[in-house]
Amino acid sequence: MSDFSLSKTAFAPATVANVGSGFDIMGFAINGSGDNVRVTFSPDTDNSLVKMTGAYAQLIPAERAKNTSSVAADFLFIACSKKPSDYLIELEKNMPLGSGMGSSAASAAAAVFAANSLLGSPFSTLQLIPFAMEGERVACGAAHADNVGPSLLGGFVLIRSYSPLDIVALPFPADLYAVVVHPHIELKTSDSRKVLPREVSMHNAITQAGNAAGLIAGLWQKDYELIGRSISDVLAEPYRTQLIPGFDAFKKAALEAGAIACGISGSGPSVFALCKGEILAKEIAANIHTVFMNQGLISDVFISGMNAEGTRLV
Amino acid sequence: MSDFSLSKTAFAPATVANVGSGFDIMGFAINGSGDNVRVTFSPDTDNSLVKMTGAYAQLIPAERAKNTSSVAADFLFIACSKKPSDYLIELEKNMPLGSGMGSSAASAAAAVFAANSLLGSPFSTLQLIPFAMEGERVACGAAHADNVGPSLLGGFVLIRSYSPLDIVALPFPADLYAVVVHPHIELKTSDSRKVLPREVSMHNAITQAGNAAGLIAGLWQKDYELIGRSISDVLAEPYRTQLIPGFDAFKKAALEAGAIACGISGSGPSVFALCKGEILAKEIAANIHTVFMNQGLISDVFISGMNAEGTRLV
Repeated sequence: MSDFSLSKTAFAPATVANVGSGFDIMGFAINGSGDNVRVTFSPDTDNSLVKMTGAYAQLIPAERAKNTSSVAADFLFIACSKKPSDYLIELEKNMPLGSGMGSSAASAAAAVFAANSLLGSPFSTLQLIPFAMEGERVACGAAHADNVGPSLLGGFVLIRSYSPLDIVALPFPADLYAVVVHPHIELKTSDSRKVLPREVSMHNAITQAGNAAGLIAGLWQKDYELIGRSISDVLAEPYRTQLIPGFDAFKKAALEAGAIACGISGSGPSVFALCKGEILAKEIAANIHTVFMNQGLISDVFISGMNAEGTRLV
Repeated sequence: MSDFSLSKTAFAPATVANVGSGFDIMGFAINGSGDNVRVTFSPDTDNSLVKMTGAYAQLIPAERAKNTSSVAADFLFIACSKKPSDYLIELEKNMPLGSGMGSSAASAAAAVFAANSLLGSPFSTLQLIPFAMEGERVACGAAHADNVGPSLLGGFVLIRSYSPLDIVALPFPADLYAVVVHPHIELKTSDSRKVLPREVSMHNAITQAGNAAGLIAGLWQKDYELIGRSISDVLAEPYRTQLIPGFDAFKKAALEAGAIACGISGSGPSVFALCKGEILAKEIAANIHTVFMNQGLISDVFISGMNAEGTRLV
């Protein structure tokens, strides 16, 4: 067996889930951030711990049953009648945890992609999503797909349904850019969930459905204005922005600089703005940077077109 | 002035609103039923009553301020600085009232289309929608657009928002057929509204948004299966079907015969099924007819492709 077949490494990109009116049903992949996972057939070593490197390796459990990447990969190994303990998992953890940019999803997506490739690709990329979702389950308690879906498939993705799982890859305008801002504050997903009401008005439910429908139509029509008008989220954003210092300032700065829409990335604290073209994206990022500096907020700013490729071998 | 410019007659088609997950936000136009309105410049006659003919003329008020067609047309005349009383409105009322097939919308759409044409078309068809909505306001108390939108524009239409009004014409697969069944029972819109809850679960709101988004994606992708999976309405249908005797039998018969989806047309009592192709539509209609006959339900059945043209001069 050649070295080539003994080991595979995959990169999975960061993602923005809960895209405004796409709350809990849509996400997209971005460039500039992501995790790498190498999977190696190594039956003679002790593989009970995930080997970790990268800036954020210290913060996550190495135990095989608790690490997002290994949990996801092991579900795939078992589905293929392989012994998980025969495979070494190495995670280069580049993404900060709890950022709202799909950190755990990137680890899970890269792991299942590398493992699948190592086994001769028995599954399509779409079919890898349920395995990666198991990584999400161990990371955040819910096997959601709105980060692993776009991280694996790339581009804009709709999670229409979970039972049965129904995922639709969407088109997007080639010049659609995202400015993603990750403020250096901690925000637990559990806190973001707690502020959401269990009941919403019929009126808001209909408004959200109309906006989600408009967002899909805008993406298909490559109509930036319609995308912008449609992203408005009336179900979650009104409750969650209180948890994100600077959100209102961010939104004002982004829209003033020409963004078509803004929203919370995942369950926060990261936030995103969408616009047409990279030049405008840079202007928006600069405007946000100035506003945040003036307010004493420290943040990372990513400027990215849509990552159309999704997870890939490296 | 020639006769040609003194009078215009328009036909507006029947429509199916509340298309499953498109509850309150989508509608489509069908063939086989609709109203005609003639508008004539006639300043020397008493035009205070709408002249009515047609099978259902007896059932609606002739007074200019109460008739759907004249109310809609008069809003347009006033917007164009014309005296409404200078114009005779003649309505051929072919559609039954309270059918859930956009009867009042067809009267309003035909009226504004004919009036606009008579005045030299100062408004685009899209711009006519707010005038026709005023006809809906007098007919049913709410200036909704999910019937007048598709009746005027044809095809499948999304009403993303009312404030501001934001209407998106959608594509649809060429072979998409509707079977619309109008059971001969009376169902007041006000009763259909009363059964709806004011609050819904967050979970159902998200499900509806996902389905509405999936429906739009399915229409764009011409993916009949996705359209079928996405039409499921969790906000209104569970409450309204109790008001429509035979709905469960209808749904079973339609799905067994190959329909991709079923739902309530408007606020009922009419119901619709969607399928691929006219041959299948006829089989579905026959199956429904048999089931309804056996249950002693009397109904009209319409088989129609999407009416792509919308309101037109005749």
